[in-house]
Amino acid sequence: MSKHMPPAHPFDDDKLKEECGVFGVVGVADAANFVALGLHALQHRGQEAGGIVSHHPLEGFNSARRFGYVRDNFTSQSLMETLPGPLAIGHVRYSTAGSKGAAIRDVQPFFGEFAMGGAAIAHNGNITNAIALRRELIERGSIFQSSSDSECIIHLMARSLQRNIPERMEDALRRVEGAFSIVAMTRTKLIGVRDPLGVRPLVLGKIGDGWALSSETCALDIIGAELVREIEPGEMVVITADGGVDSVFPFRRQSPKFCIFEHVYFSRPDSIIGGRSVYETRRQIGVELARETPVEADLVCPVPDSGTPAAIGFAHESGIPYGMGIIRNQYMGRTFIEPTEQIRNMGVRLKLNVNRALIRGKRVVLVDDSVVRGTTSRKIKQMIIDAGAAEVHFRIASPPTAWPCFYGVDTPQREKLLAATMSEEEMREHLAVDSLKFISLDGLYRAAGEASGRNKSCPQYCDACFSGEYPVAPSDMIEKGFQLKAAE
Amino acid sequence: MSKHMPPAHPFDDDKLKEECGVFGVVGVADAANFVALGLHALQHRGQEAGGIVSHHPLEGFNSARRFGYVRDNFTSQSLMETLPGPLAIGHVRYSTAGSKGAAIRDVQPFFGEFAMGGAAIAHNGNITNAIALRRELIERGSIFQSSSDSECIIHLMARSLQRNIPERMEDALRRVEGAFSIVAMTRTKLIGVRDPLGVRPLVLGKIGDGWALSSETCALDIIGAELVREIEPGEMVVITADGGVDSVFPFRRQSPKFCIFEHVYFSRPDSIIGGRSVYETRRQIGVELARETPVEADLVCPVPDSGTPAAIGFAHESGIPYGMGIIRNQYMGRTFIEPTEQIRNMGVRLKLNVNRALIRGKRVVLVDDSVVRGTTSRKIKQMIIDAGAAEVHFRIASPPTAWPCFYGVDTPQREKLLAATMSEEEMREHLAVDSLKFISLDGLYRAAGEASGRNKSCPQYCDACFSGEYPVAPSDMIEKGFQLKAAE
Amino acid sequence: MSKHMPPAHPFDDDKLKEECGVFGVVGVADAANFVALGLHALQHRGQEAGGIVSHHPLEGFNSARRFGYVRDNFTSQSLMETLPGPLAIGHVRYSTAGSKGAAIRDVQPFFGEFAMGGAAIAHNGNITNAIALRRELIERGSIFQSSSDSECIIHLMARSLQRNIPERMEDALRRVEGAFSIVAMTRTKLIGVRDPLGVRPLVLGKIGDGWALSSETCALDIIGAELVREIEPGEMVVITADGGVDSVFPFRRQSPKFCIFEHVYFSRPDSIIGGRSVYETRRQIGVELARETPVEADLVCPVPDSGTPAAIGFAHESGIPYGMGIIRNQYMGRTFIEPTEQIRNMGVRLKLNVNRALIRGKRVVLVDDSVVRGTTSRKIKQMIIDAGAAEVHFRIASPPTAWPCFYGVDTPQREKLLAATMSEEEMREHLAVDSLKFISLDGLYRAAGEASGRNKSCPQYCDACFSGEYPVAPSDMIEKGFQLKAAE
Amino acid sequence: MSKHMPPAHPFDDDKLKEECGVFGVVGVADAANFVALGLHALQHRGQEAGGIVSHHPLEGFNSARRFGYVRDNFTSQSLMETLPGPLAIGHVRYSTAGSKGAAIRDVQPFFGEFAMGGAAIAHNGNITNAIALRRELIERGSIFQSSSDSECIIHLMARSLQRNIPERMEDALRRVEGAFSIVAMTRTKLIGVRDPLGVRPLVLGKIGDGWALSSETCALDIIGAELVREIEPGEMVVITADGGVDSVFPFRRQSPKFCIFEHVYFSRPDSIIGGRSVYETRRQIGVELARETPVEADLVCPVPDSGTPAAIGFAHESGIPYGMGIIRNQYMGRTFIEPTEQIRNMGVRLKLNVNRALIRGKRVVLVDDSVVRGTTSRKIKQMIIDAGAAEVHFRIASPPTAWPCFYGVDTPQREKLLAATMSEEEMREHLAVDSLKFISLDGLYRAAGEASGRNKSCPQYCDACFSGEYPVAPSDMIEKGFQLKAAE
Repeated sequence: MSKHMPPAHPFDDDKLKEECGVFGVVGVADAANFVALGLHALQHRGQEAGGIVSHHPLEGFNSARRFGYVRDNFTSQSLMETLPGPLAIGHVRYSTAGSKGAAIRDVQPFFGEFAMGGAAIAHNGNITNAIALRRELIERGSIFQSSSDSECIIHLMARSLQRNIPERMEDALRRVEGAFSIVAMTRTKLIGVRDPLGVRPLVLGKIGDGWALSSETCALDIIGAELVREIEPGEMVVITADGGVDSVFPFRRQSPKFCIFEHVYFSRPDSIIGGRSVYETRRQIGVELARETPVEADLVCPVPDSGTPAAIGFAHESGIPYGMGIIRNQYMGRTFIEPTEQIRNMGVRLKLNVNRALIRGKRVVLVDDSVVRGTTSRKIKQMIIDAGAAEVHFRIASPPTAWPCFYGVDTPQREKLLAATMSEEEMREHLAVDSLKFISLDGLYRAAGEASGRNKSCPQYCDACFSGEYPVAPSDMIEKGFQLKAAE
Repeated sequence: MSKHMPPAHPFDDDKLKEECGVFGVVGVADAANFVALGLHALQHRGQEAGGIVSHHPLEGFNSARRFGYVRDNFTSQSLMETLPGPLAIGHVRYSTAGSKGAAIRDVQPFFGEFAMGGAAIAHNGNITNAIALRRELIERGSIFQSSSDSECIIHLMARSLQRNIPERMEDALRRVEGAFSIVAMTRTKLIGVRDPLGVRPLVLGKIGDGWALSSETCALDIIGAELVREIEPGEMVVITADGGVDSVFPFRRQSPKFCIFEHVYFSRPDSIIGGRSVYETRRQIGVELARETPVEADLVCPVPDSGTPAAIGFAHESGIPYGMGIIRNQYMGRTFIEPTEQIRNMGVRLKLNVNRALIRGKRVVLVDDSVVRGTTSRKIKQMIIDAGAAEVHFRIASPPTAWPCFYGVDTPQREKLLAATMSEEEMREHLAVDSLKFISLDGLYRAAGEASGRNKSCPQYCDACFSGEYPVAPSDMIEKGFQLKAAE
Repeated sequence: MSKHMPPAHPFDDDKLKEECGVFGVVGVADAANFVALGLHALQHRGQEAGGIVSHHPLEGFNSARRFGYVRDNFTSQSLMETLPGPLAIGHVRYSTAGSKGAAIRDVQPFFGEFAMGGAAIAHNGNITNAIALRRELIERGSIFQSSSDSECIIHLMARSLQRNIPERMEDALRRVEGAFSIVAMTRTKLIGVRDPLGVRPLVLGKIGDGWALSSETCALDIIGAELVREIEPGEMVVITADGGVDSVFPFRRQSPKFCIFEHVYFSRPDSIIGGRSVYETRRQIGVELARETPVEADLVCPVPDSGTPAAIGFAHESGIPYGMGIIRNQYMGRTFIEPTEQIRNMGVRLKLNVNRALIRGKRVVLVDDSVVRGTTSRKIKQMIIDAGAAEVHFRIASPPTAWPCFYGVDTPQREKLLAATMSEEEMREHLAVDSLKFISLDGLYRAAGEASGRNKSCPQYCDACFSGEYPVAPSDMIEKGFQLKAAE
Repeated sequence: MSKHMPPAHPFDDDKLKEECGVFGVVGVADAANFVALGLHALQHRGQEAGGIVSHHPLEGFNSARRFGYVRDNFTSQSLMETLPGPLAIGHVRYSTAGSKGAAIRDVQPFFGEFAMGGAAIAHNGNITNAIALRRELIERGSIFQSSSDSECIIHLMARSLQRNIPERMEDALRRVEGAFSIVAMTRTKLIGVRDPLGVRPLVLGKIGDGWALSSETCALDIIGAELVREIEPGEMVVITADGGVDSVFPFRRQSPKFCIFEHVYFSRPDSIIGGRSVYETRRQIGVELARETPVEADLVCPVPDSGTPAAIGFAHESGIPYGMGIIRNQYMGRTFIEPTEQIRNMGVRLKLNVNRALIRGKRVVLVDDSVVRGTTSRKIKQMIIDAGAAEVHFRIASPPTAWPCFYGVDTPQREKLLAATMSEEEMREHLAVDSLKFISLDGLYRAAGEASGRNKSCPQYCDACFSGEYPVAPSDMIEKGFQLKAAE
């Protein structure tokens, strides 16, 4: 419904966007408070909206869903008192694939009342056959309340003939294709699921006598929980306060394909993925970049904040001094409602300013995490030149992003991706810089701990955005006309 | 009036706080838009509230004052349309010295209607004889509307016998003691003043055919203005769109005493002060620190974000690798309204998380800009230890802060300052770290460009917070019982 | 979900409450504007919340649902621009039978996406077998999003095998028992239905080339539409801008039972029901009352505002002067959010004040529309006595309300109804008045135009709240334990 | 400042508007609660905004000022808790004479800090030499914060040389011309003043051990206070909880001129003025009208709600039946923010609807309180004609309003007053009614209790709006060019 919504992120559309973070806790007093803290730590995974559902033995299910930051909504005594009980789950989102605008009914967790009681579900990822599933369900009499494809799961569960909710969820998920890490709850159980490929992250933590599920470990840290382990690809865990963690594997086992872009950009640098520090991987990408694409220069400067670890690695490996040539405004928020034209035109200057005194006369290596449309890169390069830099060399901590992601990431259409239509040299000319180099796919895999690089016959990660090799066919998109990469 | 206000900054009370930023523009269409952008760039100087006054030949004076960030208030078309005209000034504030709570009537700019027309005034700094002035004015029949001492200036102007507003302002300012950088406006004139010692910054910029005044150069950058020069200590400039800049020096000339803490912490690193890059001074402080207080260690880690430039300098000079051992949550906002107890207790964890994988087993040098109460330093140290650091060495980019500032900075009472009651060794024990070292006053002056260090007989800067030598007697505070440092 | 909602109407719980008003328009530009006006005129039928859905050929369906008055929500240019198109329906509600608290998802119209397109539906009345239907639908896999029983209709439609929406609605309504006047819409059709007994009102109007459906004629007046006719009991009309009005009768024909309380209290006095002026009926009730229960007195005084027409009739018939002995505060609103105790205790004094000068020393006849719990009547009587009245005689414009309504009216549980537990004389003693008299059922029927009174074997109206004779069995309530009147 | 405010009362500009109501209480716990209730009862005297100041021995002065109704702002526990203490005053306002738009700083009570402590002041009426006073005060160095002329009083008090606040207020009020009823407070005293002519009302009440001051008696009723007496013209009372009521008469004694329009329209019908019931006066006006201007007709119909008492009197005296031919929408609020054009064009239909069934074919006497611009009267007449009335006879319960009021009432400029430019017959033609008659001035005085009518040489009331005889010269307006009535 409707064009009448303000555009989100008007000045920040040149990054891939992780679409969601999920968090759940069972077995602690006032679980919703912990969920709020966890979601605050996962805010980088979704800034548009957040929601929490809690359950209390006497008060039943309660929920709150709000647009805006977690800290602006889910901290007040008066709101949090409406979410009592020892069991709660929550969700932050950027925006869902299906949504044209922003409506509060699209904000997760979703809630469904089944014959055996209620359940709430929150989900990070994307269902690649959602359109077909939705059409089928509507034909059979289901009424959809949101434009989110996650709602399919609730309707599939409602129609399952199983007797309890976890088994109904298994039934439902077997019909679903795509990438999904799910946190769900019944009146007594906290449930976590990762899709068979394990594309999206999900970890298990222990807090006192209770348990937590989280998209990333940094959200366990904030509540003082200890990391127990990752949920495995294709695993479903059903957790109760008393009974602990039950684990089942409802899907056919497949070779895992974790999203390598979580290492490059999505996850927070203080998170641990697959036993490996995200920060260290990013720093190591910088080291690999310096080895693969050396350059003579006077200053290594990160594009803040996501380029910082790779820049530190690049500076260390190359011996070129590291410096903050670009300063970020700490008070830049998520979005502006109906800004004046003058303010809209400011674009990146609202967020970044060049440290002119440091840049002037220098040959500068700018280290950024990725190039998507290239619009921001052009503006940053111009700011650096205006400040009097002698040379500008871009070093990018990921391979060229040439393919859209269909697994829960907001990517532009393929033709908007700079690397989909230009060679590296054409991109360099387009950005008008002295040099532009990307890390190689093999270099990226090495930085991520795969000493011998990418296994071409069966890549260790999902790298479809770089390689065009999609581990799950994006059925809905193919139906809409998306062209897969021609077999070589 | 009243205890019923939420406490501001509950989790961030362990820094000195600059209290204000000022900005003004004349001679451009929709001047208020430029002021909004300038204030956004000065937001670090005051996050509690902001205000803009504009003047339009047909619409007269208009004003808007709001609590909260500039970007949340002064960007919408609908509000900015109420602030038309080619002349505008604005102000961001942390909180004024006189205020117990937060009331919109205390938010600057202040406006006064005089016999010859209206004027608005905004002010960064503090009037050290405000209590005495206020008492005198009330006895003579002035009605104060705010608890801000800046309002004294308006009342003094109202009672002046001069025929025009700039001369009335001169009259008023001659009665005032303290530190003040003022941006003011009449129907046609933009006015800037710095106090005779030039304690607070104020710079002049050129934008197209118009002119701008700003606390810092970073705010000129955002609107695309060029830095012309600093307003000199004791100078008053009166600027019109047509007539350009008139300069007068209404006060007795004195030896300048610019606030050295602007270099250490208050100003943004991308600003230029006295022809010198703030970033470079901070980096150089790190270099001096490494020379003065060397240490064997495995990692130099900044306390984000203010410790970063000094940490880069320390790492460079010492040869110890630089790394991001502490990660800052980008989505941490200014304040929480009535948070739950659980959230209040989180304190610094809401804002910072340790990068455990990087810290574990290492001897860590933590570089911070200052130690005020020491409460945050203790928590950070504990987080680092909990993450498995082998040793923790604090290096502080300023000398011990042992005296409160009375010149427009929010400092705790003297007895709350750690360095006022403890020796360096006692502080080290209190923080329970392996070593704690501060840069020397001479080292700080050298980093700020004074090759031969501090001139003891006539210091080149105001360094009262370190030295206890106050260049202007804090009369109001002395009346309230503050004890000056005994003469040596 | 949840006890955390503010209580609605804390000072006004001593009336039966009509629960809804519905309105729809097709074939006019900006139809939603007309709906907003119509709902404003129907506000007396539901003050808690309102909603509008519109359809535009290019923009599709849009909706807005808000708590509060129509005039506070649905008048602003900015909101109404989001509801474009020549077809719209709307709803105001007091609260739905199923709801414990207030949630925006319970606010009608409800929207459903079917295989052949979307439909929205709004509903005045109550489904008496909703609990059973809901249980059945959930067992078969429907997911309910609201606690409103109206949602059953949408789910029944979704599961119908008919090929178009009006026929699906017929299918659905044949499964539904109770009282319902429905206004619904598809992309091109405006649909109206009355239940087979025609308990709730619904009228058809003509406006320019378009058509309107409304709960009452007063809402046709406000938009300048002309009354065409009433929708008949058991009739469904399907209206298009081009094709005009199609009429079908999907239900088995029954003897009509229009709600007689619409004449007594629910409808606005300027509405026409069954060709008869509501005002005139109420005035005639006063005339009948004066004939049935004459009294010697000095003043006839209405309890404002609903007792006014009957008081005018009583005064006219009896020859006793008419006067405003009780003055109503015009600025009394719907509800208070968390009022102070002092204010809560004020109760009826916030709304009414006695005109002491008029009352003092007089024998007063107070004419009110009904007695429900009797709490307000006691307070009013006390105010009149405190003002110095010599005698107080209550005359009530309806028979004793001894039975709850299950057809879309909010009534207290039977044991809370004064007339369910007390005889007329006991009530008089309870209220401590000099006399208390109710109009007889026959008198009421005569005033409503039935010259020979009530037809006992087949009453011309639904008068269950007075007689206990329910024309549709309240199945859900019987399942919950409600005892029907014993057969005589 | 500024044209950017929404227009207030877009649909209701055809009445004279009382501009303010005042209320104060001392000697009761939580006095602000009582003030809120009192202001609610006085809401008809000012709907735009309200304010309360309270004083508590420990918490000092606190204040809250809000746009909107009292019941929407001053009922919540959370706000009222910020207004503690046993002494409070409050104010409701329509809009002040000096204000072009609406700014919260113009909302009373005003507060001033004097050398001997603070005081707050609220005021009903108008200062007729405010412009001159303001000019003089600004020239002498006073800074005005509002556009309200009431602020003059505070500044005059600040400059007084008297030692205590009541004496300073006497000093100030001796400089002031016009009509004013004041309620003020210091830390311990409640103060009430009426101007020497007693144009505006003010009454004293007793509540428990405390005291109340109020514009009208109806506000004493709501808090359960007893009317003690009216404050006399030219009297100042200074009330303390312990010491009771001190009375002084600071002004030269003059012949009283109470506003006769308070009887006609401003005051609530349940108030007592000068020992006389407002309702009874209005009813008696109807009786006089029926005697002075009889007519043959079938129905006497009030224009709701202000014409009702006179219509009852007219019907009673004439023997023509009384009926509600026009029905008022109870849910019509104060104002609309940026309404759509369609809604704006609705005008009076949003508020009133004709009871067609009653009107059709009848000769109708419409009784209204006054005719100001005549715009609403024209619309009402048209609605009555459209409904099929055979004849329309207007009877107006006041003489022709031919002169503006300068004593605290919002009147159109003289040329906008219908009666200023037309004879009675021209007005009848303009309204296109069968007859139009006003009560005579003598008839009005008789109805108000002056058996021998108006004393021409020294009228018992201020009736300037009818007679053009202004008891206080409107100096500011004369300076602006207003022409007094030529001497006869």
